[in-house]
Amino acid sequence: MRKNQLNKSKIYTKDKEMAKELTSRSENYSQWYLDLVLKADLAENSAVRGCMVIKPYGYAIWEKMQAQLDKMFKDTGHVNAYFPLFIPKSFFSREAAHVEGFAKECAVVTHYRLKNDPDGKGVVIDPDARLEEELVIRPTSETIIWNTYRNWIQSHRDLPLLINQWANVVRWEMRTRLFLRTAEFLWQEGHTAHSTREEAIEETVKIINLYAEFAEKWMAMPVVKGVKSENERFAGAVDTYTIEALMQDGKALQSGTSHFLGQNFAKAFDVLFTNKEGVQEYVWATSWGVSTRLMGALIMAHSDDNGLVLPPKLAPIQVVIVPIYKKMEELAAISAKVDEIIPKLKARGITVKYDDNDNRKPGWKFAEYELKGVPVRLAMGPRDLANGTVEVARRDTLEKQNLPVENIDEYVEILLGEIQENIFRKALSFRDENIRKADTWEEFKQLINEKGGFVSAHWDGSAETEQRIKEETKATIRCIPLDGEEEAGQCIFSGNPSSRRVLFAVAY
Amino acid sequence: MRKNQLNKSKIYTKDKEMAKELTSRSENYSQWYLDLVLKADLAENSAVRGCMVIKPYGYAIWEKMQAQLDKMFKDTGHVNAYFPLFIPKSFFSREAAHVEGFAKECAVVTHYRLKNDPDGKGVVIDPDARLEEELVIRPTSETIIWNTYRNWIQSHRDLPLLINQWANVVRWEMRTRLFLRTAEFLWQEGHTAHSTREEAIEETVKIINLYAEFAEKWMAMPVVKGVKSENERFAGAVDTYTIEALMQDGKALQSGTSHFLGQNFAKAFDVLFTNKEGVQEYVWATSWGVSTRLMGALIMAHSDDNGLVLPPKLAPIQVVIVPIYKKMEELAAISAKVDEIIPKLKARGITVKYDDNDNRKPGWKFAEYELKGVPVRLAMGPRDLANGTVEVARRDTLEKQNLPVENIDEYVEILLGEIQENIFRKALSFRDENIRKADTWEEFKQLINEKGGFVSAHWDGSAETEQRIKEETKATIRCIPLDGEEEAGQCIFSGNPSSRRVLFAVAY
Repeated sequence: MRKNQLNKSKIYTKDKEMAKELTSRSENYSQWYLDLVLKADLAENSAVRGCMVIKPYGYAIWEKMQAQLDKMFKDTGHVNAYFPLFIPKSFFSREAAHVEGFAKECAVVTHYRLKNDPDGKGVVIDPDARLEEELVIRPTSETIIWNTYRNWIQSHRDLPLLINQWANVVRWEMRTRLFLRTAEFLWQEGHTAHSTREEAIEETVKIINLYAEFAEKWMAMPVVKGVKSENERFAGAVDTYTIEALMQDGKALQSGTSHFLGQNFAKAFDVLFTNKEGVQEYVWATSWGVSTRLMGALIMAHSDDNGLVLPPKLAPIQVVIVPIYKKMEELAAISAKVDEIIPKLKARGITVKYDDNDNRKPGWKFAEYELKGVPVRLAMGPRDLANGTVEVARRDTLEKQNLPVENIDEYVEILLGEIQENIFRKALSFRDENIRKADTWEEFKQLINEKGGFVSAHWDGSAETEQRIKEETKATIRCIPLDGEEEAGQCIFSGNPSSRRVLFAVAY
Repeated sequence: MRKNQLNKSKIYTKDKEMAKELTSRSENYSQWYLDLVLKADLAENSAVRGCMVIKPYGYAIWEKMQAQLDKMFKDTGHVNAYFPLFIPKSFFSREAAHVEGFAKECAVVTHYRLKNDPDGKGVVIDPDARLEEELVIRPTSETIIWNTYRNWIQSHRDLPLLINQWANVVRWEMRTRLFLRTAEFLWQEGHTAHSTREEAIEETVKIINLYAEFAEKWMAMPVVKGVKSENERFAGAVDTYTIEALMQDGKALQSGTSHFLGQNFAKAFDVLFTNKEGVQEYVWATSWGVSTRLMGALIMAHSDDNGLVLPPKLAPIQVVIVPIYKKMEELAAISAKVDEIIPKLKARGITVKYDDNDNRKPGWKFAEYELKGVPVRLAMGPRDLANGTVEVARRDTLEKQNLPVENIDEYVEILLGEIQENIFRKALSFRDENIRKADTWEEFKQLINEKGGFVSAHWDGSAETEQRIKEETKATIRCIPLDGEEEAGQCIFSGNPSSRRVLFAVAY
């Protein structure tokens, strides 16, 4: 029936047995990441080059992220809408910087029909169904949205427009990596329109603060907030604000950006409004987004050689209960006790799974839920039943203790909060230990090459210097930190004067 | 600055003034629908042919639908995942019926790069970046998903797979209509895999029942559940179950379908599993979906010449409060009273908006919220304040009454439930009045042409007869109702014997 059926089946069995065998981080960090994404059932590559399948467990984490972000957007007055997947090719040419940045590596629709192959081999493009103007699959939606806003905005009373879209976008990346860089990815893109420059800048900053709050409070991932240098700015923006996180291998990961677009898109798409004085002005714009890339950040920020470590606030399963038994009567007695505990946990808003699958041994289950990053594991055997206890294991520290089963729900609720905080603290310490100052070019190169992490250094502000530093060290300016201080100094590369330090790093 | 600025601005003002002036249903039902979608700010056509922009108010209704459907899917054991937007062209050719139904009218990606036009006019396709195999934008995802399932399914222990996806899909429709038929639309598509035929059929039926419950309990829209005839079956299905609703113009609207796919896709994509007896078998499949088309159904099922009528369970704003005042002191006093009412309504889970915008007159606001279908309007003026009353208007019947402001929250909560039921009852009466039996061909033609609605008639079961009836009357078999009774009769068209009646209608 199936070709290579035996072989496949063998590989699969092997895979299952090896479920726990991740490459260690010290051995090969990239391979560890890939192993983890695949073995924890988060995502996999699809039959389409560069496009991933987000598997149910991975998608459940993304849904938790979406739900919280969506709530935060709505709490700050934003509404959702939906704009077309397709963008007429000519729209890109309207904003000069934007076309350079986005219109090149993209998926282009040229035809709208297939027909039976005259040679009888499947289907082929129908040459009669060529589009008059090619359509680009959106790599980002500024152009189609601002083309739409032209008809929505006439007066200052129509402003601000505070609109967000949850969507898929496509950028034809040549080298892809699950979650971190894929041809298609999921994201949200906010596109707001304002009557003044000040209000638009205020919105840009409000959103970068919102992203930072989400990263720190929900993902337990500390970030540096800052502004991008010109080289790293969004194509079409006046200023790009960013949150930058540090991964365990010392590389930085840009986790969210918020752009002040000035009047660039309003000018490109002819979007004017009548202000309170009755004068016509171009509208001011922002755009901002986070994507499924955050999944990659979440995985790399906290996980270890045993598997995922998930912050409880984003864990699809917060508590797993595993029965330890030999005889079926023992399982029945344990299950009866578990049936008392589960409603109490649920009443506290805790997501709990009872794994009484008889096909798997407890050891297999322990390893499996460690791999999946379930924050708390409760194990209960006949002795626990007799003693009125339960074994509580926390994923972040791998510590175990035996505790009275009475009030275990209250204990677990507090423990989940502690785990959330502990994961953040650990990542924060790591991040803070890995921000180092460099005052000379030699020192800079040594830090970047040997230590990694963020290097705080003076830079002369020129794009050329930045480019040269990148060529020699692969490090880029991640941001000019918002909380940085004025400090007179000399550019580590050119020796030219500088008024503040910026953060460099090798980045994902 | 902007060309035609004056003209546009004039049109816009005119539009605003005319906000209430919908074409009446009796005058031109299609135009009424289009007017309503545009003027209630639900959606509009975009710059891309056949693609719509779903505006924030329309999207808010869709989000409410999504949230409830998603909950119902999860409550029945389904999980969400995400599969690629692109499908390799060759995948379509694997399932013979499927390729005929879907691979033809679709958007085809042929290139992955644009470059600067050598003539300096914008960007053009880079001929060097032609894809080896063209990619089709998914019109539905059976092929890419079953290609993926091949690697996920080995044993009966891997089954069932109960997976849903929320996604955008593209079908290159030649004649489009906002929400009802658009080139790109949003939907959910469930794709499940089972170890037995019986279990797959059970899933198919479970989902059509779920869709019917959603339509009736949430959309307040009665539906007929049934099975499709061969002509109307999903391309690649063994059986298609459907829910069919009746619109106010007497046309039917297919509102959701659930397909039993047999082993067709498992065979096409070589998906086998080892059953409990250790024997390899092909996997059994279902797929099912509802789309933004439901928005069109919701609008057409209930709305009237004043605008939208929304069932409270799906209304983004359930209650609007409008102050009636001349002096600002009056507004202040009313606002103080409203500030007491709002928290009480919110505590009951009611979504409420207080519109104290001073730029608009109460009459304008009344018309606006009627247009937007807000189920309950509370109006309060100085006399109400003095009397301790409030005017309560319900959108469905347009009835008004003055009630004590005390306990108004409790009253409104009950009223919202009543409105939900009343809208359903009204649609149900209309639907039931518009199911008519025909026993002769003349009677059939007369009913379809003069009355519309569903016509219940005997049919000989042949695709040819169905096709002939369609050619002569435009009516199609909407379904063979699940609750239909066995009844010997003769086909209205051919006179051949028939064992049960089927429902015909002209459909959207």
